[in-house]
Amino acid sequence: MGFIPEVPEDCPFTYDNIPFGVFSTEEFPGLPRCGTAIGDYALVLTALDGVYDEDVAAAFRRRDLNAFAALPSIKRRQARQQIIESLRNGVLEEADFVPLKDVKMHMPMEMREYTDFFCSLEHCSNCAPMSGGSIPENFFHAPSAYNGRASSVRPSPHLVRRPRGIFWNPSNGNGNGNGNKDAKDPTYGASAALDFELEMGFIVSSAVPYGSTLSIADARSHIFGFVLLNDWSSRDIQRFEMPPLGPFNSKSFGTTISPWVVTLDALEPFACKPKHEHLPLEHLRLPDGESGTWDVNLKVELVRGGRRYQLCRSNLRYLYWTPFQQITQHASAACGLQVGDLMGTGTISGDGTDEKGEKVELGCLFEATRNGTVPFRFEDGEELGYLKDGDEILLSGWCEDGNGKRILGFGECSGEILPAK
Amino acid sequence: MGFIPEVPEDCPFTYDNIPFGVFSTEEFPGLPRCGTAIGDYALVLTALDGVYDEDVAAAFRRRDLNAFAALPSIKRRQARQQIIESLRNGVLEEADFVPLKDVKMHMPMEMREYTDFFCSLEHCSNCAPMSGGSIPENFFHAPSAYNGRASSVRPSPHLVRRPRGIFWNPSNGNGNGNGNKDAKDPTYGASAALDFELEMGFIVSSAVPYGSTLSIADARSHIFGFVLLNDWSSRDIQRFEMPPLGPFNSKSFGTTISPWVVTLDALEPFACKPKHEHLPLEHLRLPDGESGTWDVNLKVELVRGGRRYQLCRSNLRYLYWTPFQQITQHASAACGLQVGDLMGTGTISGDGTDEKGEKVELGCLFEATRNGTVPFRFEDGEELGYLKDGDEILLSGWCEDGNGKRILGFGECSGEILPAK
Repeated sequence: MGFIPEVPEDCPFTYDNIPFGVFSTEEFPGLPRCGTAIGDYALVLTALDGVYDEDVAAAFRRRDLNAFAALPSIKRRQARQQIIESLRNGVLEEADFVPLKDVKMHMPMEMREYTDFFCSLEHCSNCAPMSGGSIPENFFHAPSAYNGRASSVRPSPHLVRRPRGIFWNPSNGNGNGNGNKDAKDPTYGASAALDFELEMGFIVSSAVPYGSTLSIADARSHIFGFVLLNDWSSRDIQRFEMPPLGPFNSKSFGTTISPWVVTLDALEPFACKPKHEHLPLEHLRLPDGESGTWDVNLKVELVRGGRRYQLCRSNLRYLYWTPFQQITQHASAACGLQVGDLMGTGTISGDGTDEKGEKVELGCLFEATRNGTVPFRFEDGEELGYLKDGDEILLSGWCEDGNGKRILGFGECSGEILPAK
Repeated sequence: MGFIPEVPEDCPFTYDNIPFGVFSTEEFPGLPRCGTAIGDYALVLTALDGVYDEDVAAAFRRRDLNAFAALPSIKRRQARQQIIESLRNGVLEEADFVPLKDVKMHMPMEMREYTDFFCSLEHCSNCAPMSGGSIPENFFHAPSAYNGRASSVRPSPHLVRRPRGIFWNPSNGNGNGNGNKDAKDPTYGASAALDFELEMGFIVSSAVPYGSTLSIADARSHIFGFVLLNDWSSRDIQRFEMPPLGPFNSKSFGTTISPWVVTLDALEPFACKPKHEHLPLEHLRLPDGESGTWDVNLKVELVRGGRRYQLCRSNLRYLYWTPFQQITQHASAACGLQVGDLMGTGTISGDGTDEKGEKVELGCLFEATRNGTVPFRFEDGEELGYLKDGDEILLSGWCEDGNGKRILGFGECSGEILPAK
């Protein structure tokens, strides 16, 4: 009988999870390897070489998870089951495991393109009036999205440099980039309106070739799994650049993902119907029996001066458009999707309130502080309008059983703001 | 004395050009190789292995031009000179060359990301009123851009499938997707408003690491060269999806580039000042002595039923924001640029007219036919509002000496419309 890792209370990496990631150790710093996390340990997956199918074993010898993700979902499911059984049966020794605190996480995938959606009705409703408009008419007919910048997606923990960019001169002094309406002189400088966005991300498994589209009934087999995603945004640069082409430099300076990919198989027990049920155009209708989304609890915290402050809680199932609808709509123009492509769900806001009736499910500071004008005021006197240098934003996500016990989680998605260069 | 290829009159591939591309031959269809074009021939660059620096020789042994593009510009310049001299000196035999008509062109680069700009004042002025707005205020302060989809960029000749997508029901029957203003029901179907956009593209040579920005004085050394670029657009899908995130599926179904990359060294004799001179924010000011752009003549033709119809002529120097300003602004948020990244200049329109006073420098059908409502009417009775299945769009570009003699060209950039699936 070998070593069977224990899973401490509230640890995200349970035997129900078995996520996939890529890490290196101090011993071999230049050698990222495919692994999983169990309890407080990481495991290089080649340690179980003998138990897998040959294709799987070959895929795990690579430095990213693309080859594994590209395998048929049945092979991936089987491999995960084999890992779970091997771990439970104690086929390995303690020396085969590395404490999670000693590993360096890398990007799980070689990621070519990143798309970000805009699919939360609550987020859209809250943002529209502050952006000078109403909810766009297209919102109710299709998942909206823009192409993001894959070159700046990084795994947690991520040091995010405050960007420089062009914004309208904030001569009214509140630093949120609205500026004096009459003073339209643009300035190039450090953003004064730095925000997070609470999202999840999902990763494309098998490719959709250029020229082909995707039936929503097949969407499931093209998703490898989920991560937490922080779509850092600079609201002053965004306000300047949005018309008419949408977000660009205001979002391109960094996107943080949690480095462990939680598979659809692990999420299956938490499948549920979305909060907003509606009957969309035919190509976006979920097949009968398909729940469409998952009950994933989400939380955002600010870490400042060693203290944690809760900013938001939310849930993946709040999204108006589900991930299957998102990937189907994306593929509908036949652009092609490649293994490892990342899709952000868009900010996930809700309309839940606390005991005082204050909204507490607002997934970014633009919403929660009304563009920095109504800051958070915490009990100890700290305030937060937009992010200061040194602030850390921590996203977390987990799934519970019916009694509120945490069954699995996504691990940390952390980013800390460095001062502008 | 070996074989010295002749260059026929008006051939784009002169001794002044020596572009770089990747092709395969019938003999080795699965083996794309780095090459150049001279006269009516293609040449595999390893044929001149002995004449280059070791780094260059190693780079040319790869299946794409990324390693070559990533070399310092002085090494690339030297290699091009060595190729020119070797060709002129006849160091090769006729058997070393392959007729251009017998080669299959591939993508010149492994291309990770594609960005498309919006930088022609004439294009912007013409489009704004038809899109329900005026020129955005930001236009005059910075080059605007959006992230495009790299997965659907293809080399000429490109068969472009008419996309399906969502648009407002065109119940007023003109098929341009404007629809009846009162009838806001969306439809998923084949686009009825398929357009081209006349652009050039440039390719990133040495990378800008994530977290770093680019000084405009260094911009030149980060550009490998230029191609012609057709940014196919579906105007009905675009009208539906634009607010607020900008273009997405309306542009993602295909982008065509000419497959031979014309280097900055080849373009140097045609350097010139841009048509619109203006004093931008400091980080976008061209250094003293930097012309900023190049005098490249552009033309668009429709090929239908074996006949050619001229739709547009234009010039790269018409752009309000130059490529050096574009790449500098792109890098200014520190997103990182990778070798092989593609940037489209945006549609290049001008305000030139023909003898009847009609504008003839309108770089897309949205402008030239006022969203399909004022079709081209050719002398033989053919008409063109938006593109029909089977229509071919041919872009060409060339540089002339002071007497109007063509010194070099970009070769063909052709795309033909296939019917929707």
